Amino acid sequence: MKRKAIRAKIEELAELHSGLRDGDLLATWSLTPEAVRFLVLAAEILEEMHRKNISTRIFEAGLGVSIFRDKSTRTRHAFRAACDLVGLAPDELDESTSQIAHGETVRETAAMIAFGTEAVGIRDDMFLGEGHSYMEQVAVSLAECHGQGVIPNRPAVINLQSDLDHPTQSLADLCHLASVFGGLEGLAGKKLAMTWAHSPSYGKPLSVPQAVVALMARFGMKVVLAHPEGYSLEEEPLAAARRFAEESGGSFEVLGSMDEAFADADIVYPKSWAPASVMRERTRLLRAGERDKLGDLEKAALAQNEIYKDWECNEARMAKTRDGKALYMHCLPADVSGVSCVAGEVSREVFEKARLDTYREASHKPFVIAAMLLATRFTDPAAELWRIMERSRERRGA
Amino acid sequence: MKRKAIRAKIEELAELHSGLRDGDLLATWSLTPEAVRFLVLAAEILEEMHRKNISTRIFEAGLGVSIFRDKSTRTRHAFRAACDLVGLAPDELDESTSQIAHGETVRETAAMIAFGTEAVGIRDDMFLGEGHSYMEQVAVSLAECHGQGVIPNRPAVINLQSDLDHPTQSLADLCHLASVFGGLEGLAGKKLAMTWAHSPSYGKPLSVPQAVVALMARFGMKVVLAHPEGYSLEEEPLAAARRFAEESGGSFEVLGSMDEAFADADIVYPKSWAPASVMRERTRLLRAGERDKLGDLEKAALAQNEIYKDWECNEARMAKTRDGKALYMHCLPADVSGVSCVAGEVSREVFEKARLDTYREASHKPFVIAAMLLATRFTDPAAELWRIMERSRERRGA
Amino acid sequence: MKRKAIRAKIEELAELHSGLRDGDLLATWSLTPEAVRFLVLAAEILEEMHRKNISTRIFEAGLGVSIFRDKSTRTRHAFRAACDLVGLAPDELDESTSQIAHGETVRETAAMIAFGTEAVGIRDDMFLGEGHSYMEQVAVSLAECHGQGVIPNRPAVINLQSDLDHPTQSLADLCHLASVFGGLEGLAGKKLAMTWAHSPSYGKPLSVPQAVVALMARFGMKVVLAHPEGYSLEEEPLAAARRFAEESGGSFEVLGSMDEAFADADIVYPKSWAPASVMRERTRLLRAGERDKLGDLEKAALAQNEIYKDWECNEARMAKTRDGKALYMHCLPADVSGVSCVAGEVSREVFEKARLDTYREASHKPFVIAAMLLATRFTDPAAELWRIMERSRERRGA
Repeated sequence: MKRKAIRAKIEELAELHSGLRDGDLLATWSLTPEAVRFLVLAAEILEEMHRKNISTRIFEAGLGVSIFRDKSTRTRHAFRAACDLVGLAPDELDESTSQIAHGETVRETAAMIAFGTEAVGIRDDMFLGEGHSYMEQVAVSLAECHGQGVIPNRPAVINLQSDLDHPTQSLADLCHLASVFGGLEGLAGKKLAMTWAHSPSYGKPLSVPQAVVALMARFGMKVVLAHPEGYSLEEEPLAAARRFAEESGGSFEVLGSMDEAFADADIVYPKSWAPASVMRERTRLLRAGERDKLGDLEKAALAQNEIYKDWECNEARMAKTRDGKALYMHCLPADVSGVSCVAGEVSREVFEKARLDTYREASHKPFVIAAMLLATRFTDPAAELWRIMERSRERRGA
Repeated sequence: MKRKAIRAKIEELAELHSGLRDGDLLATWSLTPEAVRFLVLAAEILEEMHRKNISTRIFEAGLGVSIFRDKSTRTRHAFRAACDLVGLAPDELDESTSQIAHGETVRETAAMIAFGTEAVGIRDDMFLGEGHSYMEQVAVSLAECHGQGVIPNRPAVINLQSDLDHPTQSLADLCHLASVFGGLEGLAGKKLAMTWAHSPSYGKPLSVPQAVVALMARFGMKVVLAHPEGYSLEEEPLAAARRFAEESGGSFEVLGSMDEAFADADIVYPKSWAPASVMRERTRLLRAGERDKLGDLEKAALAQNEIYKDWECNEARMAKTRDGKALYMHCLPADVSGVSCVAGEVSREVFEKARLDTYREASHKPFVIAAMLLATRFTDPAAELWRIMERSRERRGA
Repeated sequence: MKRKAIRAKIEELAELHSGLRDGDLLATWSLTPEAVRFLVLAAEILEEMHRKNISTRIFEAGLGVSIFRDKSTRTRHAFRAACDLVGLAPDELDESTSQIAHGETVRETAAMIAFGTEAVGIRDDMFLGEGHSYMEQVAVSLAECHGQGVIPNRPAVINLQSDLDHPTQSLADLCHLASVFGGLEGLAGKKLAMTWAHSPSYGKPLSVPQAVVALMARFGMKVVLAHPEGYSLEEEPLAAARRFAEESGGSFEVLGSMDEAFADADIVYPKSWAPASVMRERTRLLRAGERDKLGDLEKAALAQNEIYKDWECNEARMAKTRDGKALYMHCLPADVSGVSCVAGEVSREVFEKARLDTYREASHKPFVIAAMLLATRFTDPAAELWRIMERSRERRGA
């Protein structure tokens, strides 16, 4: 993309109103279509600026605080890289070295980490019914503190994976689709198969499949969700997928067969997740302090997974997709048969071919998060991007 | 505050000589009255600049290293936010992942983390008789390294809570009082009750009450310290409080009754702490490796706390204060009865009314620390603030 | 050094071609002589700029990611300080809070932390035969991602201590020697004794002695390596030392006596390390999950160390060096007899005299790492340094 092309994109962006100023990014299904377009376009612009060595710094100071209540490599790095791209200092709240109380005082912790802070990124994905609600509590407290003059700026809460949605992942996935299929306009009519896949581990969050179907159903795609019995997802994102499919002239269907899902698919996203019932029981056991029963639960869950060992994305299945060459997607890390496990989500052959593409898919995430910062922190984001082009400062170079 | 008002404050600041250049911030009772005024005024100016979106960056590079030998949420965030406000990169030394030797080689660790560093913030509050002395050892080593040309700058050591003082807390508290009572001048004659309060936990540091009485006694206030028998504080800060009370025309009194302390108080600060004897015994047991006896000590200490369950700040007690509406202060987190515990330091009703005010109290801490950085790192701090106003660079915005 | 002198050094640097652009820093024996000179000279320039309060910022944004698979205080701080000096945000990948898989997927982790990243610093020194190879895998993946357009920049991999080399240490040591003996030219003919020394701990890495002999043999020095039987080092660095000694007109000799090594030495570097056989057996036991046998191994290793308790650097031995005043070097922390242990590598008297000098030795490390960043990230490093001089921006000051 030439500089002229970047300028054209900024002009396009100036026409879009995200409505996100001083807001949060908790679930994509709360976003207007214009807001989604805004984020994808802004991410694209920021990525091109970065590739052209143009500094995208828009803060002289400010913190980007993250809270990870579950392990993370990719999203953690992406959040830090995004903060750094716009000039915020990444900072992580380590709950084990702080005195975080749960329940009522989430609001207090939220206030205490808000001073000098522009964004709070949170991952809380392990307990069904809790992560999203925790993020909402943080957001309410920040809004209250801002409203009452305690803090001059109201930091944006950014969902870095909850029990319901994983917007930084699904929007990065969407950027990837846009880059492969010629923009968001190229997606209408394409068939995307989001399917469960076998894994030798248990307890994987439900948020990725939920995030993917709820977001991709907005663009006129034929979205198919497939999983064995017992692995159904939460209702809120599925309802969103149904609604968006209808509105966008696409479709949303739930199937019980991986093969059926793969048939003529343009895009496949085979990925394991835990049965919601297992996640709920695990939450209950942890809350009740019955840790001794977790082993039994894991054993039972793995045995159940084992029944569906055949749900692997392999070359035979890929052959059934559109011209035998559907785009393979994954949020990573994938359980690759013969590599990271004996029998997993995807065969070595399929993964190896798609590997660099999955890295490209992941590469959009820092820019998606930077776009969220731009949308939530500035009254006129396009004007900021103009100024970036005009000053034309290099990111690297004295 | 308008920009003109900020300029007037800077002119006022230019008249004050803190004497802190190349020094440390270990205990407020070592500061001259002018230095205290300097810090409060500088914090006020920096806070107003921040609220006006003026970038207060005064470093192009440099590290602000923190060492936390105890848990921390508020002060840790405040230190990082302060570093970021002035352009330093916050950095934390995690002793568990380094090879810190104790005793003789504190001086070596100090030297090793001094390269490129402007400030070293330390929390070491759990062992009576040790934290303050550890900070002094670090300071001596840094001064030696600087004197011998090993490092071109001598980082300031900033006490983020020791066994003796908690200057970033007490100075933030003082800023809060100044903002509520019309400046430091408005404090003379006011009655401040720093009282012990019941808590269902044991081992809380003594540094907050010590810091508060030693600092607040400097402004002609009637400072009252109240606690049950057996909960007396360390002598050094109490001696400072007595001396300052006399010098400032105020008073300092130690009582054994919460009710008496609250009577006609303008400000109440009810907060739990451990008996010094318990802290000393705990230190001894830990040093002797007798961890099996810690449980007994905790049990005994909690039983002793239990005797004074009545030391709760509730509405009945608040009614006895000046016009029934004393300012409630707390360093947070508070043990709130019926919220974070069954029976704690303060009733739900009282805390809920004061809650946002306690957040405001906490909000000054990053600016107090930034003021310390300004005072210790620059020969002419007022001139730096002038330049900040003249260049008038926005903190947010391309 | 005056500004004029700095300019002269930059002119000198402009003549040197390091060949490191888009490369890594894994072992000094892979560097050309010109590259070594480049790094020492660049470190010297950056250090002088820093002492003159000249901002050496050459990045507006960018991350410097570190991965520590072993404890570290000095090198960790030096890496962070170096990143900060050039404008990169230091960031650490904590493998315990991420989902790093070993083996095949090192390449994936490498890709995932590459977005927005300019350098990846790695310490992996505990397992013989593994650390260096891990770093190479990371480098290969980064090169692949860059070649395939996944990332626009290819971050440099910087060895922060492997099983083979410790280039940031040995180059800092070399800068120290250059400053003491009048430049690299002053080293020819000097005798350097790198000797084993007794320690009451076991399992110390081999990389420091390997790094020191392989690098110092390049400058016409008489390099002597001395250790008791059974403590021999890896072949690759020793072969490099032999080769470089021959090429540079110096010598490289392995002895079995500390006294012989010290005789007429200009420089002594007494430092403990583990027998390679012990390190190998430890690796085997850890891999085989036979943790119960680690205790026996440690016991045997310590007993073996005990035999050579006499290998201590004390005043009697120092008296045998050139004029009785050889330069004492150590990478720190040293096991000092009567200070950090009962009987260690060096006597209290000798260490106390040399202490501040060892701090000076360590002080070069941040600048050596910054020089590596300059060499690997920029096409024309001297031009960047010119621009730094021309803009003449202060590091401290509004």
